[in-house]
Amino acid sequence: MKAVIKAVPKGTVTSPQGFFAGAVSAGINKRAAGKLDLAVLFSETPCAAAGVFTTSKLKGAPVVLTQQRLEHGRAGAVVVNSGCSNSFTGEHGLVDAAEVAALVAEGIGIAQEGVLVASTGVIGVPLPMKRIRPAVEQIIMSRDGGHDLARAMMTTDTLPKETAVSVKIGDSGYTIGGVAKGSGMIHPDMATLLCFLTTDAAVEEGFLKGALRKAVDLSFNMISVDGDTSPSDTVLLLANGMAGGEPITAGSEQADAFKQALEQVCVYLAKLIAADGEGATRLIEVVINGAASKLEARKAARAVVSSALVKSAVHGADPNWGRVVAAVGRSGADMDEYKIDLYLGDIQVIRAGRQVKSQKREINKLLNGKEINLKVNLNLGEGSATAWGCDLSQEYVAINSEYMT
Amino acid sequence: MKAVIKAVPKGTVTSPQGFFAGAVSAGINKRAAGKLDLAVLFSETPCAAAGVFTTSKLKGAPVVLTQQRLEHGRAGAVVVNSGCSNSFTGEHGLVDAAEVAALVAEGIGIAQEGVLVASTGVIGVPLPMKRIRPAVEQIIMSRDGGHDLARAMMTTDTLPKETAVSVKIGDSGYTIGGVAKGSGMIHPDMATLLCFLTTDAAVEEGFLKGALRKAVDLSFNMISVDGDTSPSDTVLLLANGMAGGEPITAGSEQADAFKQALEQVCVYLAKLIAADGEGATRLIEVVINGAASKLEARKAARAVVSSALVKSAVHGADPNWGRVVAAVGRSGADMDEYKIDLYLGDIQVIRAGRQVKSQKREINKLLNGKEINLKVNLNLGEGSATAWGCDLSQEYVAINSEYMT
Repeated sequence: MKAVIKAVPKGTVTSPQGFFAGAVSAGINKRAAGKLDLAVLFSETPCAAAGVFTTSKLKGAPVVLTQQRLEHGRAGAVVVNSGCSNSFTGEHGLVDAAEVAALVAEGIGIAQEGVLVASTGVIGVPLPMKRIRPAVEQIIMSRDGGHDLARAMMTTDTLPKETAVSVKIGDSGYTIGGVAKGSGMIHPDMATLLCFLTTDAAVEEGFLKGALRKAVDLSFNMISVDGDTSPSDTVLLLANGMAGGEPITAGSEQADAFKQALEQVCVYLAKLIAADGEGATRLIEVVINGAASKLEARKAARAVVSSALVKSAVHGADPNWGRVVAAVGRSGADMDEYKIDLYLGDIQVIRAGRQVKSQKREINKLLNGKEINLKVNLNLGEGSATAWGCDLSQEYVAINSEYMT
Repeated sequence: MKAVIKAVPKGTVTSPQGFFAGAVSAGINKRAAGKLDLAVLFSETPCAAAGVFTTSKLKGAPVVLTQQRLEHGRAGAVVVNSGCSNSFTGEHGLVDAAEVAALVAEGIGIAQEGVLVASTGVIGVPLPMKRIRPAVEQIIMSRDGGHDLARAMMTTDTLPKETAVSVKIGDSGYTIGGVAKGSGMIHPDMATLLCFLTTDAAVEEGFLKGALRKAVDLSFNMISVDGDTSPSDTVLLLANGMAGGEPITAGSEQADAFKQALEQVCVYLAKLIAADGEGATRLIEVVINGAASKLEARKAARAVVSSALVKSAVHGADPNWGRVVAAVGRSGADMDEYKIDLYLGDIQVIRAGRQVKSQKREINKLLNGKEINLKVNLNLGEGSATAWGCDLSQEYVAINSEYMT
């Protein structure tokens, strides 16, 4: 039986059954008075849980703690704050992260080992525990609290990022929901990105881990805003099984539908993040086809969306195709300049390495749109990949030159 | 006998004996009417010659031609143009590059295989041969033509980049000169960078090649403006031996002095390029000490000068030390956050992973200077490296969003 995957109207991380969330303004970043900045997500039944984390050698205290707690593949709640990443904060940072988790565990009545922690914000500054302790007690949890949680995670994000899909298979079905934040420091290898995914499907822990890794590789690891990677990157997936049925495993009939639905949620959130890059005015989607291998396609796609010159050209609606080809060239992927094709949307602008006589008006119209689609065919093999990024604007620099002061 | 290395006042690429240069305005880029854009450098006697080139898979026609011609390690002249990189121009680009070389060879009376070619400018547009052919004939060569050549190479550079040093060893001696261009697209692996180096020292070809590779690794491969790499990067070194004496070889007494003087010229030009990055207002120098290995020190130094977040913070004189540590963390170099020290100039701002109580006024003064010196000690081993970059300003984006249109 084929599965039907549908978007859930106003879907969020608490759309799947049994998930609750709530948020408060703890005043963590004094300059953002009144902003929601501390939130809790929890499931009324224990969950199978998996995570993917930053590859940086500098890992924030919440990442260290959460990685430890996920070793057993189980969790019941997540506490998240914005305004302070609690990274590069030494042993004290670990103590603080554990205390926040303990306060939440006490509040909802589960073991503290079941509470995962994530933080985002400035690096190298301790959590203001005096303001956080009383704030935890103020959090009110509800079934539609996912929307508030999405807002509480935001830093320089201009919009909350949330979604959910329902998966129907015959009479049964389940839901997958998610929230994410990320705006600057977004780069291949998943940079200052927090994402929490939930499902009421019953999923076996080993399969859950593999499915999450794969979905992250195709989504969050294929976006770039500014080439920087953060110590705090965290993607978590909690499955509470409340939709019933046998647990989905690697071999089961429902495995593919689950992977596909999860990937769809992750790609949706990843594109929202790329489009909301600091100072961004356009989303860039780059599809590489015909690479010698999948790995080379990924390299090439990420090089194009990461190129400051491509990003600046897109910002200025400048048809500088040479910069796209140069980015592919420096990516390390095999290429032959006499074979390369390039399309802007449906218009071919380069054929076998030569510029095609241009439909200037059409090209100009596409370049001035909100979404720029670049498709490269290297005509060398079967490798394909897609990556997303945003343009580089003067606004990016303005935001990032005054973040701290 | 110890060598004495001294800067030559108003030194340039034609400071060494026997080198001549000249430039004209050929009108290659129509928007830069009257700008010098085509130049020739030649030596009155044949030279040992070596080159280092872009690592991009997309190589401009001049790079392909020049690499071929350098296989024998000999050359007599270089022709360079700005305004058009003659890259991604297919077979036609190779024909054009060879024709320009042939015209120059005819003009100065040497074999065309002895003429090397370099081009910089827009990618994917053919050389305007109709304007170049008559212009070649107009070039007048002189002993102080290096200054004009330095100007003819410029694209978005705001200043010509040239220097020379004299090396005295007892009664004998020689001179090394150099010119360079580069502004955007400057990144580790030597991006849109052209540099021509000359010397009247007699140097054995094999040693010349190795010395150039090493000097480039310590200079041009340690600068970053925007993380992009160009198809045109070329560093050439010509040695005509007119200062006399036995050829310097890997084993000879004078080998170290030559390597040191060459490195000094390259580092000087590399720093000029970093400081003149598109839209740059400050030079950033990053020294990494105490890395587990030299390779890791290089990685870490390059990650810091390449970080858009560090570059933006420096632009805004923002004391956001966490971004420096985060850049080291994501570089792949081993680090222990409890061991890291960080200095701004002579002021220690992080000791063993903790922020030092800050001398705010002093720090503010240093952050507002023209040159920002960051020194990181990882306290793990003996690996050291230095890299240079520049801040990221709104101006960078303005320049690069309107380059083509």
